[in-house]
Amino acid sequence: MRPSDAKFLKRFGQRIRKLRRERGWSQEELAARCKLHRTYLGSVERGERNISVISLRRLARALRVSLSELFRGLQ
Amino acid sequence: MRPSDAKFLKRFGQRIRKLRRERGWSQEELAARCKLHRTYLGSVERGERNISVISLRRLARALRVSLSELFRGLQ
Repeated sequence: MRPSDAKFLKRFGQRIRKLRRERGWSQEELAARCKLHRTYLGSVERGERNISVISLRRLARALRVSLSELFRGLQ
Repeated sequence: MRPSDAKFLKRFGQRIRKLRRERGWSQEELAARCKLHRTYLGSVERGERNISVISLRRLARALRVSLSELFRGLQ
């Protein structure tokens, strides 16, 4: 993975964490809502996972944002 | 994979194909621009792949759209 990809994953993870915290949810709560494992979600928030589009969709739906909104501000 | 996920991947693949054709590019040309394999890109356009976010980013950059724009209209 290129350094720019690793940086992107970090920023993406921070975006997920921000959206989760805005809803006042713990990692456990969001993980349960999107049916991903809590430790997996933790690693996504730390930018350690190259998450797939199907999991992205589950995450977006659980957070009640569109996929387009999920990526708002990320390049 | 759930039927709704399979349907989503189909719609996503159609979106990629539409954006590529708007640019007048062949699959070969887009594949070369985003450094994905042509046959892989073909399977993405047919909705057969659960593409990862790093590959999504490469695709968006090659198409010169934001990730947010890439998912415009997809739910």
